[in-house]
Amino acid sequence: MTTRALGSELLEPFDYNPLTRVVYGPGSILQLGKLARDYGASRLVLFTDSGILATGHIDRCLQSLQAAGVATTLFSGVQPNPSSDDVEQGVQVAREAQADFLIAVGGGSSIDCAKGVNFVLTGGGTIHDYWGVGKARGPMLPLIVAPTTAGTGSEAQSYALISDAKTHVKMACGDQRASCKVAILDPELTVSMPRSVTAATGIDALSHAIESHVTTRRNSVSQSFSRRAFRLLSQALPVVLDEPANLPARGAALLGAHWAGAAIENSMLGATHALANPLTATYGITHGVAIGIMLPHVIRYNEPAVASLYAELAAALPSDAKFNRAQGSEDLTAGEVLACYVEQVVRQAGQPTNLLELGVEASRLHELAQAASVQWTGTFNPRPVDATSLEELYRCAFSA
Amino acid sequence: MTTRALGSELLEPFDYNPLTRVVYGPGSILQLGKLARDYGASRLVLFTDSGILATGHIDRCLQSLQAAGVATTLFSGVQPNPSSDDVEQGVQVAREAQADFLIAVGGGSSIDCAKGVNFVLTGGGTIHDYWGVGKARGPMLPLIVAPTTAGTGSEAQSYALISDAKTHVKMACGDQRASCKVAILDPELTVSMPRSVTAATGIDALSHAIESHVTTRRNSVSQSFSRRAFRLLSQALPVVLDEPANLPARGAALLGAHWAGAAIENSMLGATHALANPLTATYGITHGVAIGIMLPHVIRYNEPAVASLYAELAAALPSDAKFNRAQGSEDLTAGEVLACYVEQVVRQAGQPTNLLELGVEASRLHELAQAASVQWTGTFNPRPVDATSLEELYRCAFSA
Repeated sequence: MTTRALGSELLEPFDYNPLTRVVYGPGSILQLGKLARDYGASRLVLFTDSGILATGHIDRCLQSLQAAGVATTLFSGVQPNPSSDDVEQGVQVAREAQADFLIAVGGGSSIDCAKGVNFVLTGGGTIHDYWGVGKARGPMLPLIVAPTTAGTGSEAQSYALISDAKTHVKMACGDQRASCKVAILDPELTVSMPRSVTAATGIDALSHAIESHVTTRRNSVSQSFSRRAFRLLSQALPVVLDEPANLPARGAALLGAHWAGAAIENSMLGATHALANPLTATYGITHGVAIGIMLPHVIRYNEPAVASLYAELAAALPSDAKFNRAQGSEDLTAGEVLACYVEQVVRQAGQPTNLLELGVEASRLHELAQAASVQWTGTFNPRPVDATSLEELYRCAFSA
Repeated sequence: MTTRALGSELLEPFDYNPLTRVVYGPGSILQLGKLARDYGASRLVLFTDSGILATGHIDRCLQSLQAAGVATTLFSGVQPNPSSDDVEQGVQVAREAQADFLIAVGGGSSIDCAKGVNFVLTGGGTIHDYWGVGKARGPMLPLIVAPTTAGTGSEAQSYALISDAKTHVKMACGDQRASCKVAILDPELTVSMPRSVTAATGIDALSHAIESHVTTRRNSVSQSFSRRAFRLLSQALPVVLDEPANLPARGAALLGAHWAGAAIENSMLGATHALANPLTATYGITHGVAIGIMLPHVIRYNEPAVASLYAELAAALPSDAKFNRAQGSEDLTAGEVLACYVEQVVRQAGQPTNLLELGVEASRLHELAQAASVQWTGTFNPRPVDATSLEELYRCAFSA
């Protein structure tokens, strides 16, 4: 471990307001009923999607809630990348149920949908009214969530990402009151993920750890979370891809994704996410697939600005990582080591490594870069980006 | 950095419920008035001691509170190791002021006194009624604190340590409702500490990081805090002892003490604190002085049980630490390296290194060990202790 100088960065101010209790452990989902009751639930709506419903996880949740005597309405219609329409439907269900409490069990989509519903249910109007920061209109309902993927870290965040149903623009709606009361992190819930979901969500989480570590808003708290997340994820990802039932590795991935989410909450994200969002909006490319393609190029682009921070992460890579540092990597910069490590994980996952494979058209890179240049998240990238540099990054990724 | 195996420890459950917002930075104390108003203060009592009053820090607090329009009553009579009598006096003052909000600016004594007052003010009876865990009787007043030492980490904890005014027995009164709403961590407040206070509180904080890392209640969250705290404190302590005005080092020490406090809140402490308390109760020895003497011996005693955990901390020691690892230390165990490092800091601080120097009588070690053996904190030590082993530890420290 390198000595960190007692430098001026230790005088950087921060305001860290943790709002979410974390209940971690295999089988911890069985505490759902008791926790909901302890926090005052009497009539709740549980948000999930049809895929999760088929796994049997929801049966265990409902049994736990029934044993605790909490009346539960199930909303299992959450769609991937939930839209303003999904939120409207959820609000209707919650109004009819006279809900005083919300639960989400699923990936980031279910959790974000529940948060979105919470804004509109408690404040009226439509989700568009809450696009931005701090727009909640008074108290919101308590929310308990249990992620079934190790990816978004949405359970650690006060933001809901909801797409406009028509334009597909992703609206980030954030307010501290939208934070979860409790995040139940049960590794057993994540074992049921298909390999492709393990890969796409895990690579997304890895990108959260790497991007949050270097943003212009980074501080000593967010970087502690970023480093902790990166250490857990870089160890866990190669294992969960090969051994999906390895519960310690599933636990490490779930915790890593959570702390990466906590890092984002305190430092925001960077250019990788700005570049990925238009690919999803335009071509429907899975978020984690787009991230896996763009992240190595953004790391290389950022290195001149944040070499020493990348070195901290590269030093934390497990010595048994599949990316073999003996392959002449003594000569590689820390950023190059990190980029190669990400590419190795993407290849192990079997995800595409360039945009061409995904059917992206070279003729539209200019238009995509225009869209990327207006993404809010790009403004926190440590090395400034604009439409020109973003287009160059797309070109680097085109047939890499 | 060593690779951490994805072992069964990753399946250890935990329940992490963070309750305190942390506002960090030089000059952050000037946010006190706004924060108190934001959290609803209208009539508050500010607890401090006469030493802090003389530094001028309280003037800045009062100005900030006045500017925010919050009526403030000052209670500057907090004594070191506050007793049940101090709490009674504070309760009277708060009742007369019809306080709806409490603030503490000072060391652990002021913070613990305010917490103790909060129990009795809101629940009635005497502080003895709250000895134990979870004994608050309903909601408590919001509490904002600003530590002026980098030591106890009380601002991160739900416990108040109050001595019985007659028996001097330390009563640990803990309840999540007693946690601080906000901890303002302003390194400028700690620059005024006399060197002896910097030393005694800093060594106490260092012991919190080391002890909390290995207790029987440790988990992945508490250990993250312990490691973060140890890294900051082991870098900062040698610097703040030599350069009291070094603000980055003061910031690192203050943050280190805070995260060590957060580690304790999630993992408890060990035998060092069980051994130190009777020395303070019987001989009036400053807590951090007693800790500095006992800690190296407890580390050596614990090593057979937690060698790999001590190795994680030893690996995090700064390469420029004053304890020179080249002094044949290649052959030392990790525990021995840690113990030697602590002894080095104690010597640099000019604190006594054995009990004899402090006037402790050999004839009373047996009686002291009996007292130590009934300390709650000893039950969390990773290697079991009893009156016999504790007496042996006192003997090791007697003329070391």
